[in-house]
Amino acid sequence: MAITLYDLCGADPARRFSPYCWRTRLALAQKGLATETIPWRFTDRDALARHGAEKVPVILDGGRAVADSWTIAEYLEDTYPDRPSLFGGPGGRALARFLNGWADAVMLGGIARLIVSDIPALLAPEDAAYFVASREKRFGMPLAAVTADRDTRVLAFRESLVPLRLSLRHTPFLHGDAPGYGDAIAFGPLQWARCCSPFPLLLPDDPLHGWRERMLDAHGGIARAAPAFAGA
Amino acid sequence: MAITLYDLCGADPARRFSPYCWRTRLALAQKGLATETIPWRFTDRDALARHGAEKVPVILDGGRAVADSWTIAEYLEDTYPDRPSLFGGPGGRALARFLNGWADAVMLGGIARLIVSDIPALLAPEDAAYFVASREKRFGMPLAAVTADRDTRVLAFRESLVPLRLSLRHTPFLHGDAPGYGDAIAFGPLQWARCCSPFPLLLPDDPLHGWRERMLDAHGGIARAAPAFAGA
Repeated sequence: MAITLYDLCGADPARRFSPYCWRTRLALAQKGLATETIPWRFTDRDALARHGAEKVPVILDGGRAVADSWTIAEYLEDTYPDRPSLFGGPGGRALARFLNGWADAVMLGGIARLIVSDIPALLAPEDAAYFVASREKRFGMPLAAVTADRDTRVLAFRESLVPLRLSLRHTPFLHGDAPGYGDAIAFGPLQWARCCSPFPLLLPDDPLHGWRERMLDAHGGIARAAPAFAGA
Repeated sequence: MAITLYDLCGADPARRFSPYCWRTRLALAQKGLATETIPWRFTDRDALARHGAEKVPVILDGGRAVADSWTIAEYLEDTYPDRPSLFGGPGGRALARFLNGWADAVMLGGIARLIVSDIPALLAPEDAAYFVASREKRFGMPLAAVTADRDTRVLAFRESLVPLRLSLRHTPFLHGDAPGYGDAIAFGPLQWARCCSPFPLLLPDDPLHGWRERMLDAHGGIARAAPAFAGA
């Protein structure tokens, strides 16, 4: 039986943009687990509340609901140990947690300040109202002000990704010759940006651009097939 | 036969302060490999040149010389696979490389700008002259100017360590219940600071302070036994 994933979407149900949901989709794909996604919108709280959750991703595996991308990755690794490993052993699981924290703090935090003002236009009206109010409260200013100087701030963002570049000097993926969950962790934020905004985060001659291309093609190309801004 | 480690020292041969050598010392200790250290000074180039190396750490294992802390860690893991694992599997090795890049860029880069002016006083005169000239060239200013505003800049440095804190919310060490090479990677820079400078990097109520204490006690307490500024 396929695993069900509640997957954040825009006004167009095909526009799937949550960085956390992308981590989970790639984890499910790496495990080779059949998946059906249910498009989910910010204001559809009842759909998750019946499974005891407030945010996506949420997966349903048989009768069991599991929420939170990190918790889901551990659940899949432990529940399907005979399928390809997400972490590559206990050390990989432990250090993937470090990478997850780094990606959340540096990548998601940095990217939000570069693209957040582009997101409301993609959302259904009710979701856009929720999104703008909650994010303006978080940032303490209008979303247009958050991203106003992004052409200059993107330089510092690119510089903040140097640890990824140092790692990718040696191997095509963070996990080595093939992608693992660490790659999904770091790719999720970039896929979020690509699905939400035409703003170019990575320059074509950046080694991370090449790695992102490889991740777009990984696991059957599910990330490349998603509606996105191709120039971002 | 014990492994020999060329280990950077100050005017006092007991003052061992290289962050890279500390990574190697902890790796050797975790593997349970008997080690003899040879104190080495910046200007003693001949001692390394005869082994084809320019910088410490360099280890001699039987007739073989291996240089560079990362290369040494991989060598030890591959040469002594029956001893406790440094990486905890292939995923751990791959993601430790990411952590290594992050720690070099964020921790070593950040700490250098907070403590570099304290180092010359610890060095023999000839080494101090080399150190000051090479580092002033690197920073493009007198070392006293590099660290002049450290009381304010340390706040941003502490903030930059948030990925470590996020990881250590869940387990006592980055590798889980016991330290692995990832812990040595991140601890090395803090031990460098502690051995070189009285400047307090971590506040007592910082969870990283507690983790550093655990690392000082790890592997028989070799890091705590080293001459250092206890208040740093």
